[in-house]
Amino acid sequence: MERVLVFDTTLRDGEQAPGCSMTPVEKMRMAKQLDTLGVDIIEAGFAASSPADFESVREIAREVRRPVIATLARATSGDIEKAAAALEPARQGRVHVFLATSEIHLQHKLRISQEECLERAGAAVEQAVRLVGEVEFSCEDATRTDLDFICQVVEVAVKAGARIINLPDTVGYAHPDEIRTMLATVRQRVPGIEDVVLSVHCHNDLGLAVANSLAGIAAGARQVEGTINGIGERAGNAALEEIVMAMRTRRDHFPYDTGIDTTEIYRTSRLLTVVTGIHPQPNKAIVGKNAFAHEAGIHQDGVLKHRMTYEIMTPESVGLQMSNLVLGKHSGRHALSQRYRALGYELTDEDLKRAYELFKRLADEKKDVLDEDLLAILHHGCMEDFPRRYKLRHLQVSCGSAAAVADVGMEVDGVMQEAMAEGDGPLAAAFAAVNRIASDHVIELHELTIQAISPGGDAVGEASLQATIDGKTFTGTAAAPDIVNAAVRAYLNALNKAAHARTLEAAALEQASYVWGV
Amino acid sequence: MERVLVFDTTLRDGEQAPGCSMTPVEKMRMAKQLDTLGVDIIEAGFAASSPADFESVREIAREVRRPVIATLARATSGDIEKAAAALEPARQGRVHVFLATSEIHLQHKLRISQEECLERAGAAVEQAVRLVGEVEFSCEDATRTDLDFICQVVEVAVKAGARIINLPDTVGYAHPDEIRTMLATVRQRVPGIEDVVLSVHCHNDLGLAVANSLAGIAAGARQVEGTINGIGERAGNAALEEIVMAMRTRRDHFPYDTGIDTTEIYRTSRLLTVVTGIHPQPNKAIVGKNAFAHEAGIHQDGVLKHRMTYEIMTPESVGLQMSNLVLGKHSGRHALSQRYRALGYELTDEDLKRAYELFKRLADEKKDVLDEDLLAILHHGCMEDFPRRYKLRHLQVSCGSAAAVADVGMEVDGVMQEAMAEGDGPLAAAFAAVNRIASDHVIELHELTIQAISPGGDAVGEASLQATIDGKTFTGTAAAPDIVNAAVRAYLNALNKAAHARTLEAAALEQASYVWGV
Repeated sequence: MERVLVFDTTLRDGEQAPGCSMTPVEKMRMAKQLDTLGVDIIEAGFAASSPADFESVREIAREVRRPVIATLARATSGDIEKAAAALEPARQGRVHVFLATSEIHLQHKLRISQEECLERAGAAVEQAVRLVGEVEFSCEDATRTDLDFICQVVEVAVKAGARIINLPDTVGYAHPDEIRTMLATVRQRVPGIEDVVLSVHCHNDLGLAVANSLAGIAAGARQVEGTINGIGERAGNAALEEIVMAMRTRRDHFPYDTGIDTTEIYRTSRLLTVVTGIHPQPNKAIVGKNAFAHEAGIHQDGVLKHRMTYEIMTPESVGLQMSNLVLGKHSGRHALSQRYRALGYELTDEDLKRAYELFKRLADEKKDVLDEDLLAILHHGCMEDFPRRYKLRHLQVSCGSAAAVADVGMEVDGVMQEAMAEGDGPLAAAFAAVNRIASDHVIELHELTIQAISPGGDAVGEASLQATIDGKTFTGTAAAPDIVNAAVRAYLNALNKAAHARTLEAAALEQASYVWGV
Repeated sequence: MERVLVFDTTLRDGEQAPGCSMTPVEKMRMAKQLDTLGVDIIEAGFAASSPADFESVREIAREVRRPVIATLARATSGDIEKAAAALEPARQGRVHVFLATSEIHLQHKLRISQEECLERAGAAVEQAVRLVGEVEFSCEDATRTDLDFICQVVEVAVKAGARIINLPDTVGYAHPDEIRTMLATVRQRVPGIEDVVLSVHCHNDLGLAVANSLAGIAAGARQVEGTINGIGERAGNAALEEIVMAMRTRRDHFPYDTGIDTTEIYRTSRLLTVVTGIHPQPNKAIVGKNAFAHEAGIHQDGVLKHRMTYEIMTPESVGLQMSNLVLGKHSGRHALSQRYRALGYELTDEDLKRAYELFKRLADEKKDVLDEDLLAILHHGCMEDFPRRYKLRHLQVSCGSAAAVADVGMEVDGVMQEAMAEGDGPLAAAFAAVNRIASDHVIELHELTIQAISPGGDAVGEASLQATIDGKTFTGTAAAPDIVNAAVRAYLNALNKAAHARTLEAAALEQASYVWGV
């Protein structure tokens, strides 16, 4: 069966979305999971956008060996040089050069003529081929570009040596018929196009990203670009899990293979949720909490004797485990290790030791420890990604009808410090107390979500927040049965990331200075 | 220009989703907003599924006069009689009769032959026409039904007098090409089809609901069914706001009008969010928090001189106000009233009085009162939908490193009661204290989400929860700067609904006893 290549841009186009920025260590963790998921290409970042992104691409290129590692580059020699340098350690690297081709972008953003556009495209691809070899070329805003001109640009890029041509719907404007016509026209008119892989990259502004991606595949695209959970700017990118499961479920329409191990989909989605703190809505296709919830209905009533009456995919096919197995305070380390293995995680001895410690502490507070709790322990408790400058040692909060008061004790670089503060609520008070201790940071809190991740009154709460600290945006997450404790530890998590960022070079983790496309 | 009718089933198919159940009063509030939005048909419920649903349909039929009010009915005479009775007060009612037609449903769910199916369909439509007049007939699981048989069923339904024929993709399995072929075949083969309105109703299991709906319109459907925010079972129904904005943005492909006032979209979405407590993900198309977030990027940098470079719709077109206007403790009642008017809400004197009281209280705690805060006041504070048996009068919680302790004072039917309890966290403790007072209810908490709805350290937190109380599922919501306070009041909100339900007939608000489709 023919193969459709899966190009994941969660770490580049996804990460550009508000609230989705990731630290280099978080990116590495995601990249490893994307490798396990089986994507063919990981776009690891935009090397020229910041020193941190450069380092991040380079680290992933060094450590993640199976997939092709790609990095975005504008059609400028500076960007391409940086891309090549970042990809240097890769087993197989790819420069993804993009240049806007639509009249509206040429006139208002780039302020260049079509001739200059053709020239730049050719020169950039040639340079990238010379430096790296494998080059993908994207016509930014292709779906709003005159078809004749697309064919000219693509011809130039192919002649210059691009081996992958991507035709993105940058603004999420296209109708599936247009994607089909665009690809058919390019395939028909451009000399040498039979030797390149055509690719589609769709945005979801009108809710059509998946349909457009599938229309592209039907019209001959053999690479599809998207992100996990469909994250991305505005309404996001095409959700890879939806494209893959649509192809698999409707193989009669899409007789193509991918390299994806679909049973890793749920795990990948969940990891991204933990890293970004952004939960898919319950009715999100494939990975939403309710996506397979009719299961309950089936069990509830005797009418439905046959799973297929309402089920076109099984939860197991995306790796969703419907286990009722419960651990408790008497469960041992071996049982814990077994349960993690069943959930798909092979823990190192060190991680298991730490997980077991946290598990025992949780089991003291909570009768039944569920799979969701174990994942929270793993994601929030075990993975120490960076040195923690701030450690919570003591927290006492009083709140209610009177103003809230918080008493916080924190270790800062190993030294105990205490502070008290008042506030409109327990979090305002506790954060104010933390701010008194961590007074050398300027902190502005933007978003905060607390979600119970296991049912019942003794549920574990998962707190996710976004904050601007010293001018840079960080996310923080933590989980605990006490939501105030979880929120304060999420706050410290973001603060620790900021403190760690300070120790890196000054420019690290800075935001790119302009909005880029594709 | 030709008109496409918009059929909203938020209150029926949407409400069936886990966590989306609404009380009759909440349904009425949504129905009125759907009227303002301009939908042509409101499917107000499934009259035969429970006495509460029956009452709810009847009330909406009585009070909401412009749109057609529809109710679902199985193809049985009992269901159709109940539907007719519920629709009796309507200016224009419609019975929506459905019957499964796919082999898998006939064999495994209904256990009837195709002949029996045809007979039932004809008899049911005839009865409904006799009792109500306007009848819509749906072939449940149409997209998995043999095309020849669909044509036979549709012919029978049309002959029996159905004036709207709906061909739903019940399990979210279809590809746009199949929808197109299905509609084309039915239009070509069924005698008399030119006199009926064809309709599509799509589910999003493979991420294709909007594309399939649009394919249906392109193939001749002149009614489209869906829900606000795309809520619904599993991955949900087609999101009406996406369909409408796709048609509007791509009028070149869809030269049809709808009756929708798009500037009411955001307000309708937000009301549903408050009622159900289920937030669209940030990258949800049209109504997600980031859907128009590139705005920020445009302002940040000087590169993008032209809005259209990245913008295919304006936030204003869906009613998203980007106001920075801020109220504070010195703002008067007139300013408040003006601001609500600008946000699209005309408050009664009584509502304004209550809103102003809550506003003053909030302004004492919070420097800047933002539009989001005003909406929270309006949605959570002003709308007293039912008598409140339980009122929070006092709350004091202490939590942190030691176990949490809560002291709760509540008025129960006007009598003060107090209780204290311990727990693993502030909420567990506070809920336990409430449970001691409301000890005649059996309460099981399922879901809890707390979200900061305005930025900054003194943000207002919105708490949403779902709980099974005395065997029935209720949602509770509340907002306050103190998240523990917000969560406890959300808990009481759910309890008050449950207490109110008890005073209605015993069977009120019960769950339908089997999973139904369409």
